[in-house]
Amino acid sequence: MRAVDLIEKKKRGLELTAEELTFLVQGFTNGEIPDYQLSAWAMAVYFKGMTAAETAALTLAMAQSGDQVDLSSLGDKTVDKHSTGGVGDKTTLIVAPIVASLGGIVAKMSGRGLGHTGGTVDKLESIPGYQTELTSEQFMCLSKEVGLVVAGQSGNLAPADKKLYALRDVTATVDSIPLIASSIMSKKLAAGAKSIVLDVKCGSGAFMKNAEDAAALAEEMVAIGENCGRSVSALITNMDRPLGNAVGNALEVEEALAVLQGEGPKDLKEVCLTLASEMLSLCNGWSGDEAMQKATAALSDGTAFAKMKEWIACQGGDLDTFLKNRSALKIHSMEVLAPASGYITQMDAEGIGVSAMLLGAGRAAKNDCLDYDAGIILVKKTGDRIEEGEPIARLFAKDPHPFTAAKKRFLSAITIGEGQPAAQPLIYRKIGGIK
Amino acid sequence: MRAVDLIEKKKRGLELTAEELTFLVQGFTNGEIPDYQLSAWAMAVYFKGMTAAETAALTLAMAQSGDQVDLSSLGDKTVDKHSTGGVGDKTTLIVAPIVASLGGIVAKMSGRGLGHTGGTVDKLESIPGYQTELTSEQFMCLSKEVGLVVAGQSGNLAPADKKLYALRDVTATVDSIPLIASSIMSKKLAAGAKSIVLDVKCGSGAFMKNAEDAAALAEEMVAIGENCGRSVSALITNMDRPLGNAVGNALEVEEALAVLQGEGPKDLKEVCLTLASEMLSLCNGWSGDEAMQKATAALSDGTAFAKMKEWIACQGGDLDTFLKNRSALKIHSMEVLAPASGYITQMDAEGIGVSAMLLGAGRAAKNDCLDYDAGIILVKKTGDRIEEGEPIARLFAKDPHPFTAAKKRFLSAITIGEGQPAAQPLIYRKIGGIK
Repeated sequence: MRAVDLIEKKKRGLELTAEELTFLVQGFTNGEIPDYQLSAWAMAVYFKGMTAAETAALTLAMAQSGDQVDLSSLGDKTVDKHSTGGVGDKTTLIVAPIVASLGGIVAKMSGRGLGHTGGTVDKLESIPGYQTELTSEQFMCLSKEVGLVVAGQSGNLAPADKKLYALRDVTATVDSIPLIASSIMSKKLAAGAKSIVLDVKCGSGAFMKNAEDAAALAEEMVAIGENCGRSVSALITNMDRPLGNAVGNALEVEEALAVLQGEGPKDLKEVCLTLASEMLSLCNGWSGDEAMQKATAALSDGTAFAKMKEWIACQGGDLDTFLKNRSALKIHSMEVLAPASGYITQMDAEGIGVSAMLLGAGRAAKNDCLDYDAGIILVKKTGDRIEEGEPIARLFAKDPHPFTAAKKRFLSAITIGEGQPAAQPLIYRKIGGIK
Repeated sequence: MRAVDLIEKKKRGLELTAEELTFLVQGFTNGEIPDYQLSAWAMAVYFKGMTAAETAALTLAMAQSGDQVDLSSLGDKTVDKHSTGGVGDKTTLIVAPIVASLGGIVAKMSGRGLGHTGGTVDKLESIPGYQTELTSEQFMCLSKEVGLVVAGQSGNLAPADKKLYALRDVTATVDSIPLIASSIMSKKLAAGAKSIVLDVKCGSGAFMKNAEDAAALAEEMVAIGENCGRSVSALITNMDRPLGNAVGNALEVEEALAVLQGEGPKDLKEVCLTLASEMLSLCNGWSGDEAMQKATAALSDGTAFAKMKEWIACQGGDLDTFLKNRSALKIHSMEVLAPASGYITQMDAEGIGVSAMLLGAGRAAKNDCLDYDAGIILVKKTGDRIEEGEPIARLFAKDPHPFTAAKKRFLSAITIGEGQPAAQPLIYRKIGGIK
């Protein structure tokens, strides 16, 4: 088998076999097939696509290219959630305790943020003492005892995907739906959960800017998961504006704690309950109604909050100190005032994410340091009426230096118009899962 | 400027500027832009094509990536010919002396053969003493004194093309017409002649299998040349069967000598006169009729043959010894007999080229040694009537070992049918040049 013949085959729009895709992935991972052949193949895939069978085979080959987490000893209620990345997306902090308090086992590895989107591991690290680096023994032990563990990505999960993604990033081959789907799903398959709920973000703050692309990606991912023996469903959720009001690591933990105590923004709560119900439905075999009812109860009766406290404590986190630090916080802040009266008709989530990044809440480059307390609290959101000079948001940062740039970036993300815009759905649709 | 953005731009079907293409070519040549970006770009070009301006800019950037031969001191009658490669194509050996005997200056670098097609330098090296490695002083001196020199490619002509072609070869991006055109023309531009006649071979023995593709390639090349200030025309000629009857280095020199002495196969003579007229028309400004008349006269009155002898002698070649060796040659030969009676309806030129290669006339790999005397003489050609058991061809080789395989390959290239096939044109059309 020669890589050049497989590139030619894809270039002509023909289907590669699982054996051929495994040959490409293995050869690429061990360095026998050079980068320049994989990048040409990826560009051919961009133009010619992949069949469902090809996408599943590619994903499986990438999942099998390194370590695979074996969660089988935990039984069949292991359930994972993956978000394609958004601004103000702190759902894991709320959803995981709800699900774990109702019998689901959330044994999860999570990533760090880059660019305008945040990462769950960064948010958790804003809690003093929280350990994201766990041995696999610790990881499995917490999974069994608490039913909930969220660690940083360790080991050598899907190295083929890591290498291929880095190559796609510099060869303009990122935006291919089958390649995006297989990249995400290879890591999810290697992470071992039996059920997987995908939160496919859609809108200005997400990689997928429109609902059709988001649905196409969701369908590809659900198909891959099902082809590989997992229960998978996807929710397409709104990322035209940030989720909730807080953007920034500690600010988002605070907001998650509020939701778990029956407060917090309505949009965040609704998305979290929907995601939690979907996870419970897959792992417990519950109907959608039953799952929603029990999730709502767990949130309102404090069960989920108790599970959250147990989880954080078991991973070394000190919530009391976190809250004490927050209330005593001395930090620079600045109000962003409305430049005109009217309705907020648009709130470009990506722009707000970048603004928070400029404040120190996110990383422009991989090794940048974070200011955990930096970020933005939105006072007004899309659809709200504002008067000129009224505060739209409040910016926070230890270093006041970037305030001007962050404010400018924030304001360029806001559109103020005459009429009240039509309300947008929070959740567009569900793909796969139990009907 | 970032290479990834230029790949993205081409992927979306947008036009790159000359500056952008020069950035890619220069960066690739000096190693600053990696292979994997150029291969992704080449695949995007395969799918999205290039505009005439892009193709010209790419060609110029590649031509300027290394040494450029300066023929300006020879005046404005320098004229080059390029064949896209065929089987039995010994036209340079005949055309160059005709043109040089009529005032054109043919200062030419030529290549070696690989695979089923031969190379002019290999054919010339079958003449004892012929020097293909010349210093640039020798090259210029012979150009001035004889008006004709054919040397091997020396120096560092179009290194960007060499590197890009090697990359395309292993990334399934060879068959892109703008990339083929710019590859050929970059070397022609760097070789310095003011006028260029392209012999675009078309048919079973050529890279371009059909007349439409050949015409598209010819048009691209003519446009590039004209955009870069050269006089260029292209002839699309038949390569559905070998040109002439001889395939193999010394055999082809013998056949060329026959044509220059008023004998030899009619098809070869016709193609040579047409190519020579076209070259004379471009470099001397003659009408097509005038050029044809003078070329025909030069062939029949021995002027061209005299020029051939002068040329070969000046490059150290000993034609007398060549002819003596040929007549005293002790070599294995084998007749290929017709397996049935009928008409030869097809003669796959590529198959015959491969058969000759198996005998030792060509190289399967770059460093293979040649048997200059090996090859094939066709006794019958497409359209001829044959009876079962009659010889179709005679095979020659110093080593009789590959006869069986070569004969088998030869016979598989021949189709014998009932009716006489319609005669095919030798020259399909002309593109560019003086009307």
